[in-house]
Amino acid sequence: MLAGALLTTTTQSCQPSGDNKTDTTKAADKTTSDPLPSWNDGALKQSIIAYVTKVTKQGSPDFIPEEARMATFDNDGTLWAEQPLVQELFAYYMAGKMMEKNPALAQKQPFKAIAEKDKAYFQKNGEKALLEVVISTQAGMSEDDYEAAARAFFSTAHYPRPEVPIKNITYQPQIELLTYLRANGFKTFLCSGGDVDFMRVISKDYYGIPKEQVIGTMFQYEFIDSNRTNYRKQALWHFNDQKKKPVGIQIVIGQRPVFACGNERSGGDIAMLEYCQSNKYASFQMIINHDDSVREFFYQEKDTASLKAAAKNNWHVASMKNDWKTIFTK
Amino acid sequence: MLAGALLTTTTQSCQPSGDNKTDTTKAADKTTSDPLPSWNDGALKQSIIAYVTKVTKQGSPDFIPEEARMATFDNDGTLWAEQPLVQELFAYYMAGKMMEKNPALAQKQPFKAIAEKDKAYFQKNGEKALLEVVISTQAGMSEDDYEAAARAFFSTAHYPRPEVPIKNITYQPQIELLTYLRANGFKTFLCSGGDVDFMRVISKDYYGIPKEQVIGTMFQYEFIDSNRTNYRKQALWHFNDQKKKPVGIQIVIGQRPVFACGNERSGGDIAMLEYCQSNKYASFQMIINHDDSVREFFYQEKDTASLKAAAKNNWHVASMKNDWKTIFTK
Repeated sequence: MLAGALLTTTTQSCQPSGDNKTDTTKAADKTTSDPLPSWNDGALKQSIIAYVTKVTKQGSPDFIPEEARMATFDNDGTLWAEQPLVQELFAYYMAGKMMEKNPALAQKQPFKAIAEKDKAYFQKNGEKALLEVVISTQAGMSEDDYEAAARAFFSTAHYPRPEVPIKNITYQPQIELLTYLRANGFKTFLCSGGDVDFMRVISKDYYGIPKEQVIGTMFQYEFIDSNRTNYRKQALWHFNDQKKKPVGIQIVIGQRPVFACGNERSGGDIAMLEYCQSNKYASFQMIINHDDSVREFFYQEKDTASLKAAAKNNWHVASMKNDWKTIFTK
Repeated sequence: MLAGALLTTTTQSCQPSGDNKTDTTKAADKTTSDPLPSWNDGALKQSIIAYVTKVTKQGSPDFIPEEARMATFDNDGTLWAEQPLVQELFAYYMAGKMMEKNPALAQKQPFKAIAEKDKAYFQKNGEKALLEVVISTQAGMSEDDYEAAARAFFSTAHYPRPEVPIKNITYQPQIELLTYLRANGFKTFLCSGGDVDFMRVISKDYYGIPKEQVIGTMFQYEFIDSNRTNYRKQALWHFNDQKKKPVGIQIVIGQRPVFACGNERSGGDIAMLEYCQSNKYASFQMIINHDDSVREFFYQEKDTASLKAAAKNNWHVASMKNDWKTIFTK
């Protein structure tokens, strides 16, 4: 989804979340064999289960061998909240650390805007300004220093709306879906606009997805012999959004996914779902619709391109409001 | 190994293989629990088993959690023969197909040299000439057409020395090593200078390694909406050799391997083994030495950089002559 985790919000409307504590449904409370307890019973849940059942049943005409059961999930807005982007919070966090060491930086843009919490600056200068923060705070970092910084961030950071640790902005129904797919022999991958090594810090803990199954935006790296370590250069190598998502999948997985899930917001997942749908095997595409202004956020693309693509291509649309019993992981 | 699967041979000496049929040892004949029956008993085999045992023993000070048990293997000269490179045979095969369709091409270099079996041309023009063949025969291909072409090649191609199907130039001791590592919770990856999508066609069948665990040289790809397919562009995106191997590993795996194996010929694996050795966990590095002029080929780097690096860094060196009971897969 979304125009990459490195972009600022350009959505039509965005309302803050309500109190998600009013949602008291807990998966753990249930004593049932339902693999998707946080999904409301309905057509979509039935479709998911019917798909997984038919493609994993040996002898079924739709049977998919395990080596082709690849499932790709966008992250921001698909597996966790994106208002604001966590990647954006991390960029500001890193800028803050730099300004602590070098206070003079706070007189210079884009640091000045961060120091003064000048949101208008980033709204005005868009992707370019945020990318400047990302690159200027991360270029030259070793892979180990970057991982340590991201770990430190995740260990203390809170998400602003709702005010919770980052882990609690992940979507419980999607965690169940990932688990259900894996239990049926699917290999689950993240495929997101977020920085690949940023997501790797939490992918296993949050989603059960190992580091080597994360596809994301990549910095250019250089291996330095003397330290035997990769360092981030002053530029991106691959911006894993829109039409670059199928390319990212080609690079890392080497075949089309049979199951792909993204969300509406910027059209960022359309190409990934198209690519999935061109699989020779029976495939499943799903777009998360952010239509729950009470429990999460309500936002739609200006041109509703993702929902239009879903309608045109017969992709499934998950309504957060209607299909999800619970929103956030507790 | 080797300066990439796209390079021509620049080794000091290279003698044709002897009759590998004189080697009658068969792993299957043995009724033993030896996990490496095609390895001669000796210090190296003991070291491999001792390493795997200590890092997989819960409670051992050297224990490595499964999520960090990443093993990377070069392909050409490490898992299969590289005199000549299979990738080179495929480039000529593709050029041949093009000349069948367009005979006028045979008047133009580098096609003329291929049509006339003019080895001197490629020796003289080196990497650049071969790369020209690769790019001019593959640019514009869709991922599906490329895969189909590579499959067609593998289904019929024979290796010249010895004259066998390509599958039979894989090294039996290494197949056993890959199997042994996987049985102990390691995740095995190819990390080679060969084209990533070329290797993916045979990685599962030859080595038990799935497509998504192959790291290689990558073309630039472009996703075309109308066909929902990735196409090869007119240039390489990543040449996975020497210092680019750790970068390829960073992109795909996101952490250092604990086990890495390459071979001497061009210094192409030194950086990968250095990178592996900088792992915080106990690690294992091995260089295959092509010192068996009777059963395979004898060749050494001009500067013996790989063997020097092995001596300096205490890496293991596998002598094909002394450590391997069998060379080729039967």
